[in-house]
Amino acid sequence: MPYVNIKITREGATPSQKEALIDGVTRLLQETLNKNPATTVVVIDEVETDNWGIGGESITTRRSKGL
Amino acid sequence: MPYVNIKITREGATPSQKEALIDGVTRLLQETLNKNPATTVVVIDEVETDNWGIGGESITTRRSKGL
Amino acid sequence: MPYVNIKITREGATPSQKEALIDGVTRLLQETLNKNPATTVVVIDEVETDNWGIGGESITTRRSKGL
Amino acid sequence: MPYVNIKITREGATPSQKEALIDGVTRLLQETLNKNPATTVVVIDEVETDNWGIGGESITTRRSKGL
Amino acid sequence: MPYVNIKITREGATPSQKEALIDGVTRLLQETLNKNPATTVVVIDEVETDNWGIGGESITTRRSKGL
Amino acid sequence: MPYVNIKITREGATPSQKEALIDGVTRLLQETLNKNPATTVVVIDEVETDNWGIGGESITTRRSKGL
Repeated sequence: MPYVNIKITREGATPSQKEALIDGVTRLLQETLNKNPATTVVVIDEVETDNWGIGGESITTRRSKGL
Repeated sequence: MPYVNIKITREGATPSQKEALIDGVTRLLQETLNKNPATTVVVIDEVETDNWGIGGESITTRRSKGL
Repeated sequence: MPYVNIKITREGATPSQKEALIDGVTRLLQETLNKNPATTVVVIDEVETDNWGIGGESITTRRSKGL
Repeated sequence: MPYVNIKITREGATPSQKEALIDGVTRLLQETLNKNPATTVVVIDEVETDNWGIGGESITTRRSKGL
Repeated sequence: MPYVNIKITREGATPSQKEALIDGVTRLLQETLNKNPATTVVVIDEVETDNWGIGGESITTRRSKGL
Repeated sequence: MPYVNIKITREGATPSQKEALIDGVTRLLQETLNKNPATTVVVIDEVETDNWGIGGESITTRRSKGL
């Protein structure tokens, strides 16, 4: 029954990498808390680098500075 | 004042279907909890099938298996 | 497969009112988009009135002003 | 360490306006609660006007009525 | 930089189980997408069983039926 | 119409500090994007330190190490 939301910047994650995230987090919840994989929902949000900030500036800006 | 977030897979929901969701959930909150429709906010997120997982695999994969 | 998050202020919603929200929104998604009720997840968050703001002030403050 | 999610309708916010939101909310958390800007994360979601509802109708519909 | 939100029912997850979730999902993002653990944020929400619905009824109701 | 969710650890933020966050973020959206304060919604979530992780460990653990 768990619901997991993973937010990452949109920078080319492939379908197979997303499958690995979905599979991995579902297993983790089963192993750690005995949660039923059949009803574990995972939603991945890919966010534009203009729309993600850390340290008071966007990832776009940070990348342009080589951070 | 309620805030409702509805996440569905991106598979062709039409503008009128989205209107029906917005109207329906706003009425439901008014009828059930007497919430003021004027300040009830509804946000619908449509998620790519690669980015939604259940049962440890993506909806894309499940659809390809006929699930 | 939909996921719905309903946020309301914590002001005494009863278990049966919450059941009505869960049932109502699940039916709405079935009727509107033919979504399978068996995998429709609904999570209700009840938020303290100090922690909810609209119009630049908390609900606690608004209630004290009779708004 | 705070995490802030800002949802707005997708109506042409520019990269520099988004920078101003990221910078402003990061400063606000530092000034108000002494939160470390280095680990303050801000994510901006821009939502289609068909997918945002208030008062029981979508923003698209409201705009068409001049609201 | 990823942000992960894990929602589970509030049914006695221990601090060490929560540590295992935080550690496990942080490693998963490093292994799968080379994400920096130092800025990976994980937030766990524990939701009352009255407030979590699946199949049109609350977990509280389902548990009372032996589901 | 914007919706803002601010997540912080539960470590004693006062009602007046929360008012300052609500007021500040509402003003920021008005000044930056000309958003109407009357329909700007802010929800603050206070998260237990056991339930917040960064760098692969909970804030509780980090605090016990003096981090």
